[in-house]
Amino acid sequence: MTKFEIDRSLVVRIMDDLSRYGSDGGTGITRTVYSPAWVEATDAYARWVEDAGFAARRDAVGNVWARLEGATDGPCVVSGSHIDSQTPGGRFDGTLGAVAALVAIRTLKEQAGTPRVPVEAVALCEEESSRFPAAGLWGSRAITGRIAEDDLVSVRDFDDIAIGDAMRAVGLDPARILEARRDDIDAFVELHIEQGPILEQAGFPVAIVKAITGIRHYQVVLEGTQNHAGAFPMDLRRDPMAGFAEIASGLIDTAHRWGRPAVSTVGRVAVSPNGTAVIPERVTFTVDARHPDPDSFHRLCRTHEAHMLEVAARRDLAIRWRTLIQFEPSPSDPAIVEALTTAAAIQGVPHLVMASGAAHDTQQMAQIARTAMVFVRSKDGRSHTPEEYSSLDDIVAGIEVLTAGLHRLAYRGESA
Amino acid sequence: MTKFEIDRSLVVRIMDDLSRYGSDGGTGITRTVYSPAWVEATDAYARWVEDAGFAARRDAVGNVWARLEGATDGPCVVSGSHIDSQTPGGRFDGTLGAVAALVAIRTLKEQAGTPRVPVEAVALCEEESSRFPAAGLWGSRAITGRIAEDDLVSVRDFDDIAIGDAMRAVGLDPARILEARRDDIDAFVELHIEQGPILEQAGFPVAIVKAITGIRHYQVVLEGTQNHAGAFPMDLRRDPMAGFAEIASGLIDTAHRWGRPAVSTVGRVAVSPNGTAVIPERVTFTVDARHPDPDSFHRLCRTHEAHMLEVAARRDLAIRWRTLIQFEPSPSDPAIVEALTTAAAIQGVPHLVMASGAAHDTQQMAQIARTAMVFVRSKDGRSHTPEEYSSLDDIVAGIEVLTAGLHRLAYRGESA
Repeated sequence: MTKFEIDRSLVVRIMDDLSRYGSDGGTGITRTVYSPAWVEATDAYARWVEDAGFAARRDAVGNVWARLEGATDGPCVVSGSHIDSQTPGGRFDGTLGAVAALVAIRTLKEQAGTPRVPVEAVALCEEESSRFPAAGLWGSRAITGRIAEDDLVSVRDFDDIAIGDAMRAVGLDPARILEARRDDIDAFVELHIEQGPILEQAGFPVAIVKAITGIRHYQVVLEGTQNHAGAFPMDLRRDPMAGFAEIASGLIDTAHRWGRPAVSTVGRVAVSPNGTAVIPERVTFTVDARHPDPDSFHRLCRTHEAHMLEVAARRDLAIRWRTLIQFEPSPSDPAIVEALTTAAAIQGVPHLVMASGAAHDTQQMAQIARTAMVFVRSKDGRSHTPEEYSSLDDIVAGIEVLTAGLHRLAYRGESA
Repeated sequence: MTKFEIDRSLVVRIMDDLSRYGSDGGTGITRTVYSPAWVEATDAYARWVEDAGFAARRDAVGNVWARLEGATDGPCVVSGSHIDSQTPGGRFDGTLGAVAALVAIRTLKEQAGTPRVPVEAVALCEEESSRFPAAGLWGSRAITGRIAEDDLVSVRDFDDIAIGDAMRAVGLDPARILEARRDDIDAFVELHIEQGPILEQAGFPVAIVKAITGIRHYQVVLEGTQNHAGAFPMDLRRDPMAGFAEIASGLIDTAHRWGRPAVSTVGRVAVSPNGTAVIPERVTFTVDARHPDPDSFHRLCRTHEAHMLEVAARRDLAIRWRTLIQFEPSPSDPAIVEALTTAAAIQGVPHLVMASGAAHDTQQMAQIARTAMVFVRSKDGRSHTPEEYSSLDDIVAGIEVLTAGLHRLAYRGESA
């Protein structure tokens, strides 16, 4: 029963170093893919890979890899997360998982020797869509071979720069992007901050993620008749604001009554013409609906759609919507969840088993590998803000679970 | 029992002429105060005043007056409305009342001779706040002496031009603005399009307005805690969108249940940060609450405020608001309403007696005179749009009531 010791000061040194690149005041980080700060951060990650005694390999899309060779060639076990950030985000979202993976394989090499199959750590180039709104997990999509040639031109940043041109500007050749594809990965395990309050509320430092939520984003347009706010009696109005308010209340109430882990959010609203004394003509809004169980996810979406149609029909409003994104729920691999749970028990780390309500690179990696995740407690459940924070104790607990879990997968034959 | 005949072709000629100034495609009019189109329209109105055999007088703020002298000097009876427009508005809102007043005093002169007291027609310079958001009934405010010296500098248009400078640019001297003040007006009667569907729904061409609604505009800020739309469970959220939806539904429902003439509208919403996958931190919205009865108006506002406070407290949201505008209800003078009602009966014009849900110059004029209004049916209840329309038959019916009503006030001693 191997128990691993994590070098706390190494974790601090790498995290502190990486927080310098894209520093955006205080604890803020603005580090979008293919920006100068991103180049510096990937260079720094590569230096830490080499400091750990591995060769740093950059693939065609800019992911940085470290490989602990195994007794056989594979299929291998991989861990990692993304190195880009929100604008500004904090120091932990993504970066912690890339660092944890590197610390884990260094620890394995030093404390467990050569694995049965190779174990790799990766800093993924892009996950946040914070520079290219349609990037869509660019780093992991390159690994799974899901980037179409057209994406290199059609995916553009807020200055209308094509992502292919942004790659060229940092020395990457977009024509070689297919070379980033991997077909030799058996298992992918991502460590990430929770980004929610569940661990903090429950009093646990770490969770094993049993599924990643399904997500559907609707953009809904609700239309009535614009009229004078004073001269038009209530009983003759076709007021889309009244319909919107009823719909938003209903969607939120439905998810609330379903209970965890169902969530639904109305985050974005635009009113036309948006005048104080004008009954609106149109209210456009988004609905974000999530559930990690496939059947429940589709039932939640159907319930919301039925509610929207019913309110619009009853109020004589026109309604239409389109789906902006849809990610199906991604259940974790039961054997990996079992390996991580056992690892946590061996390391003596108290843990929950829970679903992820956020999207992650792991969802993309699930297309080519068995997957699971490790969550580390977030202070106040915050993320996508400079205030996001996870304590060193919790981080080390998470890396212990990750390390011991990777050990079970790559050394003990629990892989494949 | 004098019965007046209105010259239909004169009405058509003046309305058609005025619709040329500020023409904005089809039936649209964009004619903001002190703009070149406004100068042309006031010049044209002055020509029609002189064509009717009156001297055109421009006051210090740019209102254009015509005066039918009486056997005595006053106090006089005045009718009129504003000549500026929304951007774009239509041909009828405001302009019709200025034209109706001129046609009425020309008809009185030709068909009833010299009145006991003077009768005046006025084209008021500004009512829509469509160029200067804080103009606040600039034309009638000058007449009632409610313009402060500071307003000349602080009231600014969307290009940051002070209204005093805009006056100078069209040859008016802002230093003389106090000269526009009148203290010799006994009665003011404004003809205006209804801007709502009540006459059309009830099948009447004309209404006598017994009161103008009280209006309060709130700007409300509702704040919760911004969080990740996926990772934050429903039961731990402080979601201001949920609170906003409940408040908007409640306000609208309250006014609906009270029934006519209570109205309440949420016309303007801004969400921060307004992201699809982000539980908002803040929803800012407006509430427009109206009732023409003073007690009911204040009770409606108190009911809305209690509802907003209750929802915010129950949902642990921070709430604050400020009042953007507040106009107290303005009841019409019973004697003038009686005179107009009798006038409508004599002219054989079917009519309702109703409250105005819209604000009007008449509310300002009520500070120095007894007031009432005449409404003309609006097609589909539309206004503030190029599509606003009133038929010539309805317009002539309205001018008949106005003319006969002014006759009762200025000739028959029903004034003062």
